[in-house]
Amino acid sequence: MGKQQKLNILGLMSGTSGDGIDGALVKFESGVPPALLWHESMIFPKKIQDRIKHLMVRCNAQQLAQASTFISELYSQAVEVFRKKHSDLIDLLAAHGQTLAHVPSPAIWEDKTVFGSLQALNPGYLAERTGLSVASDFRSRDMAAGGQGAPLVPFGDLCFFGSIPGDSVILNIGGIANITVIRHGKEPFVEAAFDTGPGNMLIDQLAYEASNGRKAYDSDGAIAFSGKTNGDLLESLLQDPYFAQLPPKSTGREQFGVQRLKEIRDDWKNKISTANLMSTLLDLTVDSIVLALKSFVLPFGDVARLVISGGGALNKELIRRLNFRIPAKCEVEFSDAYGIPTLAREAMGFAALGNALILGIPANIPVATGARKKVLLGSLTPGSNLKDLLLNSILTFEPTP
Amino acid sequence: MGKQQKLNILGLMSGTSGDGIDGALVKFESGVPPALLWHESMIFPKKIQDRIKHLMVRCNAQQLAQASTFISELYSQAVEVFRKKHSDLIDLLAAHGQTLAHVPSPAIWEDKTVFGSLQALNPGYLAERTGLSVASDFRSRDMAAGGQGAPLVPFGDLCFFGSIPGDSVILNIGGIANITVIRHGKEPFVEAAFDTGPGNMLIDQLAYEASNGRKAYDSDGAIAFSGKTNGDLLESLLQDPYFAQLPPKSTGREQFGVQRLKEIRDDWKNKISTANLMSTLLDLTVDSIVLALKSFVLPFGDVARLVISGGGALNKELIRRLNFRIPAKCEVEFSDAYGIPTLAREAMGFAALGNALILGIPANIPVATGARKKVLLGSLTPGSNLKDLLLNSILTFEPTP
Repeated sequence: MGKQQKLNILGLMSGTSGDGIDGALVKFESGVPPALLWHESMIFPKKIQDRIKHLMVRCNAQQLAQASTFISELYSQAVEVFRKKHSDLIDLLAAHGQTLAHVPSPAIWEDKTVFGSLQALNPGYLAERTGLSVASDFRSRDMAAGGQGAPLVPFGDLCFFGSIPGDSVILNIGGIANITVIRHGKEPFVEAAFDTGPGNMLIDQLAYEASNGRKAYDSDGAIAFSGKTNGDLLESLLQDPYFAQLPPKSTGREQFGVQRLKEIRDDWKNKISTANLMSTLLDLTVDSIVLALKSFVLPFGDVARLVISGGGALNKELIRRLNFRIPAKCEVEFSDAYGIPTLAREAMGFAALGNALILGIPANIPVATGARKKVLLGSLTPGSNLKDLLLNSILTFEPTP
Repeated sequence: MGKQQKLNILGLMSGTSGDGIDGALVKFESGVPPALLWHESMIFPKKIQDRIKHLMVRCNAQQLAQASTFISELYSQAVEVFRKKHSDLIDLLAAHGQTLAHVPSPAIWEDKTVFGSLQALNPGYLAERTGLSVASDFRSRDMAAGGQGAPLVPFGDLCFFGSIPGDSVILNIGGIANITVIRHGKEPFVEAAFDTGPGNMLIDQLAYEASNGRKAYDSDGAIAFSGKTNGDLLESLLQDPYFAQLPPKSTGREQFGVQRLKEIRDDWKNKISTANLMSTLLDLTVDSIVLALKSFVLPFGDVARLVISGGGALNKELIRRLNFRIPAKCEVEFSDAYGIPTLAREAMGFAALGNALILGIPANIPVATGARKKVLLGSLTPGSNLKDLLLNSILTFEPTP
């Protein structure tokens, strides 16, 4: 493992929702815990969001070639916007790119096993536009080692939450909810990391549909609070085989998205009010999280705390129910309490991946991705600041055996 | 400019024809001209060729994600096959990837100028499978500097032919013919590099069609030799505005491919024999090369030699006519005479690009690509041999201002 020098790394990511770019500048320094200097988001105008969503569904090789420079241009613009607001020196960009496709299961093409995860970005383009060195392509090496190339965020969780005493579960409630389980042996380590099931995806979509598009989410969980959960429906939803499936596992929009809500609403038309359905779906999120803890985490040992991040942390009713249902010994806390703003966690995670590349530390977590072994993640594209970066860091690099 | 240490770099490329992977291992050493150690080709089975061609025409984001690991797997296999035949140590792979799309003209997407050149390859995947460090993504930074990201081979030409005394034109006759003009100032430099027009594309296609698919090309130019050029047709073909267009410029399959031949044959049905048409099309290749020399090269000074590489070098009748028509002062030679086997030139060019990345030398040629300035090309993905590679090379890196 290489020695840490002082490096300011800007993690950059844009999620599968395609709605904007999050940036978080993290200072990594020898002997000091990594520190968030700032975080920012650049929301895309509606037209750009639409174009990105369209590319995910329908595009050819030419358009995809163009999409890479398009996304690179958007990332460059985000860096420019962020730099105007903050004067801190940036040593390195660690950029995820825009996921346009992710096919977790391998396929066979002409006797070759193929995986598929496409993060549109041309690192050379971003390096030229910003003048900064770029770390990128974090997924593909894990896939070459038999993994799914995802999730990548557990390494950052270990980096930012690993020093908290006692075992912790880091819960992110985005569209999908996922957890990272951090235990302490000789050193802190990730015991498991996987998607628990739906996060906000179904409840946001219901809020949107029920308000005819005026609401993007159920603010504070007020609608759910006003409703009463339908036990039969909840029971049937919890029968989804995903919840019983052993980790590592991941799920997505295909399984718990618009289409699923449509099926539920079609089945229960006139038999359930919006408030009761909202309450039921909120319980589905809460119960599937609790189920994951009870099935796949607590059997291996108690945990001292559940640390919540993601947009779902703002849903008061969700947090209230979660608090009520998890074991009393486990504290429910928010990531902000540990210096990790709820909305900065993922971008910070990419900063941690960039730092790992520079130090030569393998950053995939095999129990999370399913890879056969730990491998170094990412490519480095030299910007005009490369010499300093190398002198500061790669000189101390020691490769993995 | 950094100092050259000893590095063996394996250039790897697969052309737009999608028929296989060429590899050339080049030794770069301080104070010694770069030397080709070996070159090899791995031809894809027909099914794989078909799949690659299909991807160029029709695919979506998911398939493209999978295509990247598919191509990476093919590149890994090629490296394995080549290594079994040759025991030389490889320090670095310099891999172009498989071009699936190249859109030379910029487009506008939501007020952003987008370029498009897609070379399918996951460098992390290749690094993991081979254990070797990988240089890749050579085009995108030139595009960010306003260039077309192509041609890339002139840098290699300068590297391998620049030390020959006197000004030279390096001519490659592939499907399309292109030239690199090397002059000598204080140091050798590339004065221009562009596509002159059709190379073998039209004559190969005619040989294929006239033989009902039994012949892939006109062997030794025998059919053309037996025919007589139709002056009217040749004259009309030479009116194509491409030939008068000022460089930098590039052309391709769209302009001088199957469709163009079909148009010509439809227009001249029953009015011209196959042999006469072959002779005429061969003259089109020869005359467009000579025209390019006379219009865009010789006005800036004589050249001592024309150095020919590419499959067209094997067409005796083509070479005979070319010899006949270029100025007497200009020697016609083959690249083999300079230690550059005709079929290794492009892969060697990528080895040269890999070396340039390691040394921190900008390798785009603005007069060729149209870029506003010289920029460093490529990304580096560390393999398990990274430490040695860095100690051998990047330590001496000095960034461009």
